[in-house]
Formats: sequence, C-alpha cells, structure tokens
Amino acid sequence: MKKQILLSFIAVCIIQFALAQKTPVRFTELPVYGKLFDTPQKYHRVDTLKYNDMPAAVKRLYTNSAGLFVTFKTNAPEIYAKWCVTKRRVGLNLTAIANKGLDVYIKNAQGQWQYASSKGTIKECEELKLAEYLGTNEKEFLVYLPLYDETKNLQIGVTEGYTVEPLSNPFKKNIVVYGSSIVHGASASRSGMAYPAIMSRRTGLNFVNFGISGNARMEKEVVHMLGDINPDVFVLDCVPNSSPEQVAGRTAYLVEYIRKKHPNIPIVMIPSVVRELSFFNQNWNVRNREQNRQWKAEYQKLIAKGVKGLYYLDDDFLLGHDHEGTTDGTHPNDLGFMRMADKIEPFVLEVMKKHAILP
Amino acid sequence: MKKQILLSFIAVCIIQFALAQKTPVRFTELPVYGKLFDTPQKYHRVDTLKYNDMPAAVKRLYTNSAGLFVTFKTNAPEIYAKWCVTKRRVGLNLTAIANKGLDVYIKNAQGQWQYASSKGTIKECEELKLAEYLGTNEKEFLVYLPLYDETKNLQIGVTEGYTVEPLSNPFKKNIVVYGSSIVHGASASRSGMAYPAIMSRRTGLNFVNFGISGNARMEKEVVHMLGDINPDVFVLDCVPNSSPEQVAGRTAYLVEYIRKKHPNIPIVMIPSVVRELSFFNQNWNVRNREQNRQWKAEYQKLIAKGVKGLYYLDDDFLLGHDHEGTTDGTHPNDLGFMRMADKIEPFVLEVMKKHAILP
Repeated sequence: MKKQILLSFIAVCIIQFALAQKTPVRFTELPVYGKLFDTPQKYHRVDTLKYNDMPAAVKRLYTNSAGLFVTFKTNAPEIYAKWCVTKRRVGLNLTAIANKGLDVYIKNAQGQWQYASSKGTIKECEELKLAEYLGTNEKEFLVYLPLYDETKNLQIGVTEGYTVEPLSNPFKKNIVVYGSSIVHGASASRSGMAYPAIMSRRTGLNFVNFGISGNARMEKEVVHMLGDINPDVFVLDCVPNSSPEQVAGRTAYLVEYIRKKHPNIPIVMIPSVVRELSFFNQNWNVRNREQNRQWKAEYQKLIAKGVKGLYYLDDDFLLGHDHEGTTDGTHPNDLGFMRMADKIEPFVLEVMKKHAILP
Repeated sequence: MKKQILLSFIAVCIIQFALAQKTPVRFTELPVYGKLFDTPQKYHRVDTLKYNDMPAAVKRLYTNSAGLFVTFKTNAPEIYAKWCVTKRRVGLNLTAIANKGLDVYIKNAQGQWQYASSKGTIKECEELKLAEYLGTNEKEFLVYLPLYDETKNLQIGVTEGYTVEPLSNPFKKNIVVYGSSIVHGASASRSGMAYPAIMSRRTGLNFVNFGISGNARMEKEVVHMLGDINPDVFVLDCVPNSSPEQVAGRTAYLVEYIRKKHPNIPIVMIPSVVRELSFFNQNWNVRNREQNRQWKAEYQKLIAKGVKGLYYLDDDFLLGHDHEGTTDGTHPNDLGFMRMADKIEPFVLEVMKKHAILP
C-alpha cells in the first residue's frame, strides 16, 4: 500500500514536471501595416524627426501604434506574442487591452475578419499566449497593436514545428483619417474597435489612423505632413479639440493646401460628434454647436470658392439617439464606434464610387 | 506705463487668487438603492456575516457595489463627489471608470434617465467634480457606484447655497439577476452599462445585480441566500462559470429550492452567452455548447417534473451576429450589453405580463 502511494506520488511529480516545461515557441518579427510613412522607428505612424516642427504633443502621439497591425498565416494551434510598450499608466477611460494590448482577428470561412481574442497588460514588456485550441488547419491572422501606447517591439510566436508566413496588407486603397482622440480610438474596448479599424475590416479598404488624442487642431506643420501623403481619400474628423475660432481660422488652409497638392483626391469633412455631456453641460453645448457651425460654414465657403471634390457628412447623430454611446461623455464606447462606422462608412464609399475610385 | 503694467499684474494676481479659492461645497451622504438586503456595511450587496457559509470569493464579490446607486434632486449647477474604494488594481478588461468610478444620469424633459457624465479614478479616495454648467433648474440625478470594487463611503456635494434632496428608489418591483461576471458588469465601459442597469433605466423596473465575477456556480449556500429574497422575478444567468457537470448537478436544486420557498415567483433561465473566443478555440467551443445543452436539458426535465412558472430564453445570439460584442472574447463590451438587454428585457417583460406582475 505504501509502495502504491509512493508510485502515485512519483507519477504525479513527473506529470507536474512535464506540464511545467514550456512548449518551445518560435518567435518571428513581422512587417507592420496600417501606416503610410516609412519611419526610422518601425511602430511609429509618422517620422517625427522629418516633421520635427509639428507640436510636441502631436509628435509624441504619432509614436502611438493606433491602427497598426501585423498579418500572417499559420497552422499552429497556439499563438503567442511578446511585445514592449512604455511605462505610462493606462488612461482612466481605457482598458489595458485597448491601451497597451493586442487584438486578434482570424479570417473565417466566409472570408471575413472575425474577432478571435484580445489581451491586455500593464507591464512594460509582456509575453503571453494570445489564443489556443485553434486546430491545425492553416488560418490567416490579423493582430492590432496597442492603441494608446508606443510599441517598442513585437514578435508573434507559434509552437515549434508549425509554419508562420507573413501576409501582404489585406486592405486595398488608402484613406487617411485625420482626427482627435476619437479617431485615435478612445474609448474603444480593444484596438480593433476604433472606427477606422471597423471600417477597414468591413470594406476591405485601408482606413489609416491619423488620430491624435487631445489634438488635431489643423496646425500648419501637421497640414504639411498630411499633404505629403498621396492617398485615395482624405477624411477630416478634426473638429472635437479645435476651438470655434481655430475651426474658422484653419479649415480653409487645411483643405486648400491638400487640394493644391492633390487636385483630384476627394476630401470628406466629418462634424464633431455631439458630445453626450453637452446635453446638460451648457458650456459644452454652446461650444460643440459653435464648432460644428463654423466647420459647416467653412465647407460652404470653400464650395462657394469652387473647391471640387469636397464633401460634408451632415449628421448630428453619429453616436445614435439613446445617449449611451460614450464611455465618458466625449469618447465613444464600442456601441458609439459601431454607430459612427455605420454612418461614416457608406458616406465615404459613396464618395469613392462617385470619383470612380471604387467600381 | 510702468504703473499700468504693475496694476495689470496686481489685477491678474487677484483674479488668479480668486479662481484658486475653492467654491465651498456641501457634501451629503445619501440612501443607497439597488440592493435587496440590509447589510451592516452600507455599500455591500449581501450580508456576508449572515451568509458566512458562502464560498469566500462569492462573499468578497458581494461586497462590490455593482448595481448600487444613489438618487437625489438638486438645483446646483455643479455636482461633486467624494468616495473611497480599495487599493486593488483595475482589471485588465475594465476601465477605471467602470471599476472604481461613478456614472451619472439625469432625468430629461421626456422623463427618461439620460447619461450625463462619468468619472474614473485609480486612487483609494477620490474627490472631484462630476458635472458642471448644468444651469440652476432643479433636476433629478441617479449616480451608479463602482462596479468592481467595494465602496467604503460616498458623499455627493453641491455648491453651498443650493438644495439637495434624496429621492426614493425610482424603480418599481424587484427582479433578482443572479449571474457571473457578465451580470456583475464586465466589461461595461461604465457602471450604468451593465445589462441589469440598462434594463432598469429603460423599463422603470428594479433589476437587481447579483452578479459575481468568476462565480455563480449555484453553490447550495448561495442558493439558500437567494431563496431568502422575495422578489417579483428571478433571472438566472449562472451558466458561464459552471462546468457542464455543475450545470447538470446543481440546476434542479437551485430552481426547486426557489420554487419551494416561493411557489408563485416566475423564474427565467438565461443560457450562457456564446463566448466569442469559442468560435476558434475548440476547447471553449465544446464546453460552451455543453454548458448550454445541460442547462436546457435541466429546464426540460424540470418542466417535465411539473415545475410551474419556469421560462427559458432560447437564444444563441445574445451578443449579436457580427462577433464584435465583447472586450476579451467573454465579457460583453457596451455593444454586447446593449444587445443582451435588447433580448432579455422583452422576454422578462413578457413573463411579468403573463403572471400579471405588470399590466
């Protein structure tokens, strides 16, 4: 009897030891997509040395990896990642998943990108399993990078013995979305829920995130950076942080500069979301209305001046009608982002069809 | 000229000094609602000394203030709060607003609770302005407490000179919602977006949050606690963390114990949401299906045994069809919670009408 107990104990120890052995994982660095500039730092959106004259906050925010993603195919049943971000704290209106984490999609049998997994961290460097029990049929993956942090490095891992192959960017055309924290992705619950990312997955088009939290005030240095891009469409969602005076004073320069450099690229103007806090906060109520009034007035003046290919999405209900579409009165939650995508996506597609950019 | 500059400087100093003076704020402690037990600790949901036999984790979680709220009317243009929670870290799948913060609604001109503001914190004790520029017409407020933390104390403040009056609970009837982290509110972006809270605001009925994260495994001690309540309806959403064996072994005891103590109170069984991660994770795929299969089989057995007033919401799409309704593959984001409310609310209302609890 004692011998039996001893043998059982040894057997349990062996099993424990075997389980404690890490499966050997092979890590790979992959190309990154979702950006339109070559940058010295791989996971920055804009070369902040080249555009050194931009405001300091704008430069810092363009080092955040909002909208960036890697894509690959593998037959591995388990997917790992290791990545490093900064030591900065998670924002009060964000999850650690959105702020510093990864968001994983897999192409499903219908050829659509379907949510599979998402993981957050508060560590500066993290290593963990992103997904498991996936079977061994080859699948295509898309992994979004942290929305609100600088990604210092990223490697995707699979169990030794399985293949990993980088894929090319699955999204066609390029639509620049220049905007505030809302474009940047606050307060999506995970990085794939920022509205440009939602629209990319649904349309197969490359909506590129040029969102910069607390900014997008149309500074000339930023306008010049945008003008250096040669996309298929410019979407301007830059009203939320611009004062009514800034909207009145800067919109014409922004639109006319782009139009001068790119005579034929359509430009879509999006009004600020009506902040949910503005229904009771009378200060915001006036400011929000005045921002959008000036924005629309600038649009009308530009049209009157003969600017071609300029469009205005005239909608006060981008967040819906039930007032539940934000996390903090300003930043859309996933409900609000889905509603924004439902309004902005068909409008942009319509413009693209009109300009024969899409059939 | 020098004199002018000096005078201007003095004037600016005086203005700065005046602005730096805090407006005197009067703080008031208010009655708390959203719970069905008297508890020695005001902001606990269940008396964990009285129900000392419940599992330790369950007891700790019933000290979280999920679903609790205060309500008052005031003509103050600024609303403040000071409150204390624990030192515990914010969950990776939560915002600091949902986990430790406050969520403010105001009754609008149509008599509906409309979102007004929400504030997060990572401090153990916080004091801040919840809303401002509200005008001085009297309004009714509803402030939800932290979802995933113990609220140690809470006071609402208004500028000296304005009135504050506690209101009675605006929600009628009592519907117990017993469940897991999903009922508890993970991963709502703010406490008012947990699905019982959404349904309360929309229906005027008191859906009471008995959610306990990572738990709700129908332990007998918890069943006995639930049986001590005398609500109008029991909603059971306790499958997500129960193994298929636990579902098979414990459901009958839960339902029959409630039925024995309360022969006429309708009981609504909600299947587990189909976890979004389960579409690719084959382990979860099998487990999730088996959990719900057992749950439905138990329902059918109970019906066959003659249990009356028992209802089953047979729906595999509580989170919708686009797979975007979660923050982490398991916990609904605000999009998912809104979809859950859209399915569960009419089903429960129908049951209440059938039982003449509602006209």
